[in-house]
Amino acid sequence: MTAKTYRRIVLAARPVGEPKESDFKVDTQPVPEPGPKEVLVRIIYLSLDPYMRGRLRDVASYAPAVKIGEVMVGGTVGEVVKSNHPGFRPGDIVEGSLGWQEYAVATDPAALRKIDPSIAPISTANGILGMPGMTAYFGLFDVAQPKPGDTVVVSAASGAVGQVVGQLAKMMGCRAVGIAGGKAKCDFVKELGFDACVDYKAGNLDADLKAACPNGIDVYFENVGGEVSDAVYKQLNFFARIAACGSISQSNNEIPAMGPRLNGLFTGRRVRLQGFIVWDYRDRYAPAMQRMGAWVKSGKLKFREDIVDGLENAPKAFIGLLKGANFGKLQVRVGPEKG
Amino acid sequence: MTAKTYRRIVLAARPVGEPKESDFKVDTQPVPEPGPKEVLVRIIYLSLDPYMRGRLRDVASYAPAVKIGEVMVGGTVGEVVKSNHPGFRPGDIVEGSLGWQEYAVATDPAALRKIDPSIAPISTANGILGMPGMTAYFGLFDVAQPKPGDTVVVSAASGAVGQVVGQLAKMMGCRAVGIAGGKAKCDFVKELGFDACVDYKAGNLDADLKAACPNGIDVYFENVGGEVSDAVYKQLNFFARIAACGSISQSNNEIPAMGPRLNGLFTGRRVRLQGFIVWDYRDRYAPAMQRMGAWVKSGKLKFREDIVDGLENAPKAFIGLLKGANFGKLQVRVGPEKG
Repeated sequence: MTAKTYRRIVLAARPVGEPKESDFKVDTQPVPEPGPKEVLVRIIYLSLDPYMRGRLRDVASYAPAVKIGEVMVGGTVGEVVKSNHPGFRPGDIVEGSLGWQEYAVATDPAALRKIDPSIAPISTANGILGMPGMTAYFGLFDVAQPKPGDTVVVSAASGAVGQVVGQLAKMMGCRAVGIAGGKAKCDFVKELGFDACVDYKAGNLDADLKAACPNGIDVYFENVGGEVSDAVYKQLNFFARIAACGSISQSNNEIPAMGPRLNGLFTGRRVRLQGFIVWDYRDRYAPAMQRMGAWVKSGKLKFREDIVDGLENAPKAFIGLLKGANFGKLQVRVGPEKG
Repeated sequence: MTAKTYRRIVLAARPVGEPKESDFKVDTQPVPEPGPKEVLVRIIYLSLDPYMRGRLRDVASYAPAVKIGEVMVGGTVGEVVKSNHPGFRPGDIVEGSLGWQEYAVATDPAALRKIDPSIAPISTANGILGMPGMTAYFGLFDVAQPKPGDTVVVSAASGAVGQVVGQLAKMMGCRAVGIAGGKAKCDFVKELGFDACVDYKAGNLDADLKAACPNGIDVYFENVGGEVSDAVYKQLNFFARIAACGSISQSNNEIPAMGPRLNGLFTGRRVRLQGFIVWDYRDRYAPAMQRMGAWVKSGKLKFREDIVDGLENAPKAFIGLLKGANFGKLQVRVGPEKG
């Protein structure tokens, strides 16, 4: 049975620096009726991801900013509750970008992806079998292009993307080294099969990284930027490749922070740094998802999710994400799996 | 007739920051006899290039440092005066890395390249038809990979490499925009056929660059680094490519200067930055040189050299090079073309 009203979270104020909970506002709306060819979805899991900080900033980027009063953008997994589209039936589990809310009308059902719940928990469609998994897959294989024997370092290694990057690197015969904050996260990263994990909070980053990477660093999958990345750069090998996926440590800066100029080092060592956005690979998601799904189902790829209950807790969880407070792929359980 | 003694310039002290003339010392040596399979060369032109600053620094790099008391490294064009090698005869004009001196025994004549004086002035073997020309060729075509219609920006545009980059970009249907210091250099760059040139000393770099690049910047051939490059980065288009050839503005820094962290921008715009060293392309020099030689001979490619007389003036000229004092490819005329 469908509720009569639902809650959503809109942007109340444009944050400057670190977002505050008061920058977001919960309101209640009547559940809408889907129009012709539209689908009404009850949202179960909301994905919280670092890119969202960029959408709060009103500057030209690869995607438009969220406007004040608009529902926050976000990937979701949910259940179709009403369908006026021949491709969807009530009960279908779908993944789509439906935002921080309990219900949404998908006005473009072609953008929804049907999820097979027999492969893995449906929340993985926001994680290892969703955008973060694709980010790891294409960022590692297409952007960084490691070779067997390469040492691959990934920062935010216990996070949604990092945990996958290291496992994929291991699958192809690389040495996988994670960087994460704290012993618990590092222990988890090693359980996943990484060869080593460096705790950047332990205070010996340069030396610990050197010990973990005795042959230097061939590939760096960059998720954090800032001083952690500076330490990695110093140990890059000739012809190293950097997949510049994101810089979460820099995400609350309104203007770029200062750091050491790197081009001299990058020239002498012939480093390639390539920024990328996973969306550019969307035409190739389907076969990659299929492959990743088989690996997850067989247990070859493991994953960890950090699930917070209740839509109203999304702002706080998101603010924590930007500071590394989560442990694994962060999601919000907006409603029960069985409605 | 061969002289009995010759002058050479050795490294007297390891410079810290900007080199001083006293870091170099002229001494006089007896002209040596070539051994079996060796060749004695009278040096005519000595090339002065930014990479030499790196060789003065005793840190791990792609090439070893010059030791105190050793002859300074450098590319040269000279005349064979004695040969014990069947491949060379007195009078042959050759290019090789024989250092800051008036005579040298080439102990590995296989590393010498015979120059055909009918193609262009022999000094060009140190310039447009030598290492700087190859740097422009491979850095643009192989590293930056422009497409017709792209806007290609090159810094140090009147220099040995920059002047070639812009002309090659024009040949393939790009918009070529130079950045240079001062009106005279910019006027020259425009005479070469560049579409525009921005004088970074004029004080309106951001606005002048915007006017010169109304469609943004697709390719940046980076020769200078520092604040000039910072201005370029801000106007990079999505999927822009940077060929990181060198950072002459940073070359006297003993530790990296600070600048804005760029990875956030590079991720969002999917920028690719690739450091390179032309030597990595040496197996492909011959056909590229042949092609470039034909373009120079036909007048399709123009060039400007800045020739200083007398080996003793090499240190001063080199120090000036690092500050942009030269105008065109800097060389020292060590001896007359006809000995």
